[in-house]
Amino acid sequence: CILTTVWETQLMSLCQGTRDYNPKQMAIREKVFNTIISCFKRHGAETIDTPVFELKETLTGKYGEDSKLIYDLKDQGGELLSLRYDLTVPFARYLAMNKITNIKRYHIAKVYRRDNPAMTRGRYREFYQCDFDIAGQYDPMIPDAECLKIVHEILSELDLGEFRIKVNDRRILDGMFAVCGVPADKFRTICSTVDKLDKMSWEDVKNEMVNEKGLSEEAADHIGEYVSLQGGMDLAERLLQDQKLSQSKEACAGLSDMKLLFSYLQIFQVTDKVVFDLSLARGLDYYTGIIYEAVLTQVGVVPAPVSTEAQNGAAEETVSVGSVAGGGRYDGLVGMFDPKSRKVPCVGVSIGIERVFSIMEQKASAEKVRTTEVQVMVASAQKNLLEERLKLTTELWNAGIKAEVMYKKNPKLLSQLQHCEDSGIPLVAILGEQELKDGVVKLRTVATREEV
Amino acid sequence: CILTTVWETQLMSLCQGTRDYNPKQMAIREKVFNTIISCFKRHGAETIDTPVFELKETLTGKYGEDSKLIYDLKDQGGELLSLRYDLTVPFARYLAMNKITNIKRYHIAKVYRRDNPAMTRGRYREFYQCDFDIAGQYDPMIPDAECLKIVHEILSELDLGEFRIKVNDRRILDGMFAVCGVPADKFRTICSTVDKLDKMSWEDVKNEMVNEKGLSEEAADHIGEYVSLQGGMDLAERLLQDQKLSQSKEACAGLSDMKLLFSYLQIFQVTDKVVFDLSLARGLDYYTGIIYEAVLTQVGVVPAPVSTEAQNGAAEETVSVGSVAGGGRYDGLVGMFDPKSRKVPCVGVSIGIERVFSIMEQKASAEKVRTTEVQVMVASAQKNLLEERLKLTTELWNAGIKAEVMYKKNPKLLSQLQHCEDSGIPLVAILGEQELKDGVVKLRTVATREEV
Repeated sequence: CILTTVWETQLMSLCQGTRDYNPKQMAIREKVFNTIISCFKRHGAETIDTPVFELKETLTGKYGEDSKLIYDLKDQGGELLSLRYDLTVPFARYLAMNKITNIKRYHIAKVYRRDNPAMTRGRYREFYQCDFDIAGQYDPMIPDAECLKIVHEILSELDLGEFRIKVNDRRILDGMFAVCGVPADKFRTICSTVDKLDKMSWEDVKNEMVNEKGLSEEAADHIGEYVSLQGGMDLAERLLQDQKLSQSKEACAGLSDMKLLFSYLQIFQVTDKVVFDLSLARGLDYYTGIIYEAVLTQVGVVPAPVSTEAQNGAAEETVSVGSVAGGGRYDGLVGMFDPKSRKVPCVGVSIGIERVFSIMEQKASAEKVRTTEVQVMVASAQKNLLEERLKLTTELWNAGIKAEVMYKKNPKLLSQLQHCEDSGIPLVAILGEQELKDGVVKLRTVATREEV
Repeated sequence: CILTTVWETQLMSLCQGTRDYNPKQMAIREKVFNTIISCFKRHGAETIDTPVFELKETLTGKYGEDSKLIYDLKDQGGELLSLRYDLTVPFARYLAMNKITNIKRYHIAKVYRRDNPAMTRGRYREFYQCDFDIAGQYDPMIPDAECLKIVHEILSELDLGEFRIKVNDRRILDGMFAVCGVPADKFRTICSTVDKLDKMSWEDVKNEMVNEKGLSEEAADHIGEYVSLQGGMDLAERLLQDQKLSQSKEACAGLSDMKLLFSYLQIFQVTDKVVFDLSLARGLDYYTGIIYEAVLTQVGVVPAPVSTEAQNGAAEETVSVGSVAGGGRYDGLVGMFDPKSRKVPCVGVSIGIERVFSIMEQKASAEKVRTTEVQVMVASAQKNLLEERLKLTTELWNAGIKAEVMYKKNPKLLSQLQHCEDSGIPLVAILGEQELKDGVVKLRTVATREEV
């Protein structure tokens, strides 16, 4: 019976790169989502949802090399479909399709990437993204600053330890590349190399620029001086006076906006965590202005990378080890979906939720996490009281109280109490002949054994 | 430039049978989910999640003819994968894989069915299922009764209008078929025909039994007498005395349990809506005991069918027009996934959430539905107060208050007030030079224009 054996073996497994969430993991996930969603709602966001699959051509040409990681559906007759790779492209498609020019929305949903199993260590092919974006034509840097405020609020509330939010601007990077003598057609590829500075030493990065990407050593050294700079508004001011950099109009526009950004960040009271860091580049091509990335800085809490990402770091949530949020301004993407190429400026942030989950799970691994919210267990010490137990439970349910009762005619009191201990139910309502005669219920606090 | 034209046209469309949810739909969806999840939690349920795709063989052989509706992923090298078709099979796989013998869980997630577009009218290929199940060996009919209590609570709270919950038992049906002279190998197919009684007249059903399925006219007429019966505990008692039906051990077991069920339903105070209805059959093969289905009975609220389903009615959420919940006991399914065929008895219910959405959407089509929860808009009547507006907004955010501010340096007061009207924000905090001097804020109630 070979078939049966094969059947049995295969049934007990899941697709590679996917996982079930058990009730404990779900309880942690719910807590994290609640914190994040509360923050998004506090900032006035609406939410939308899009289908898990899109027409294949909607995704085509948006992810560069990473397109090979897109899951296609089988051609079973009909349209060619692919599973969504991120939430940004479906969002842009949604805006263009519905001619929406103003929206502040969040979207929390699963995305899919056929990551090479050999390359993945604890990464998943199905994982959540958690995006907040502001679309619309507004006065400069106000929505951008709000995105950073949101990151600050969420990371503080999740209590993941110390963090830092690095900011930079694509225009500053491009201006810097220009004045350092990088040919315009190499901006994006040099930008990708700079992006590796959080994982590689400057020597290795320089080596890649010079030997792999054909940059002159002089240009690379110039870049090296700039990308070592970190600061706040003062650095933006200083660089506006920089003899070389101030020659680039683009860089000046970026630096002026950086100053403006910091002035809003001061009002929002978040400058304690924000650093203007010229080495921040981010992988995605579509950013057009400010970019940012939040990293955990506390030793010991930096988790193993858990989210699926492209090796070359071109994915939305791809960031350095310890990175838990990232985003930026992308003013051109919606126009790619509009027949008349009408632009809708957008700025957004993606919370690296899988990484947050894994930190929270590590933290919770020792603790007991409640997986239900039951407030009271209706129990009895004596036999033949099922009906009375069910009656009381009904009364509690009808009053909106979360209550449980054992599905047994005559459960042992000990097993009823044990269940409370196991699942963290704080109260037991104990029924007995005497209580029924007196028309009362004995209420016991499980932890202290106090009874009233 | 033919390519561009094709590109433009195609980009503006979604896959057939899928849809985006806009913020208004999402607000309705969230409200419905909150009601349902609160009820599940009140009854002590945990939640789990499973991947959207399973190994193809996990789904193979579970859905009979409907297997053709399963979405397969393209073979891009690696395992053969399919999108989940329902939540019950992944649940059974999860229990077997993790050797879980006791759990009360809910699972709300999307499932996928490649429904024939020609057959669908307003049905979706991607839709939510909303399942609550109790797995474990318990005393008879207590968890079964709790499932009905849950349906009663949810439908009452959602306020969808009058409803009725029909119950029957597969053992009663099988016993009835046996004593009416249906050959054992035709039980399931005759059961499918009986299931059509809510959409077809008895004459048509009888015709199908006799002419298509080869049943004798006498047997069909016998069945016809039974399936016209409706009642409560009294009917179960009467049928236990029925000369013919009482000859079937299976029917008697089902009828005794039906009596027991009604005794628990009385305690749970839900008998007002529950009817023992011998014509209820339900399509799915895997039910082994009690089955039930809730239908809306109020004229005018019966929606167009919205959920994707097989034409032959064999799908979980397939039910008559107006049906909004269904389920039953399936004691054999988990065993199909266990190498040693260990059984885990299960009973569960699925809320026909897409139908509920469509009713709620119809109801809400005239009303204004808020899509954000913003409590206060921070506005100003005068120019050059952006910084002051942002400061106050920060104060509100930091205090956990949901607040919004316009991303403009100098917005007009009218457009700020208009935004409040449009999005239902109840309060406006208005800043002016005088208020700033006095160290106060003018708070206006949008609806009444009262100011303090």
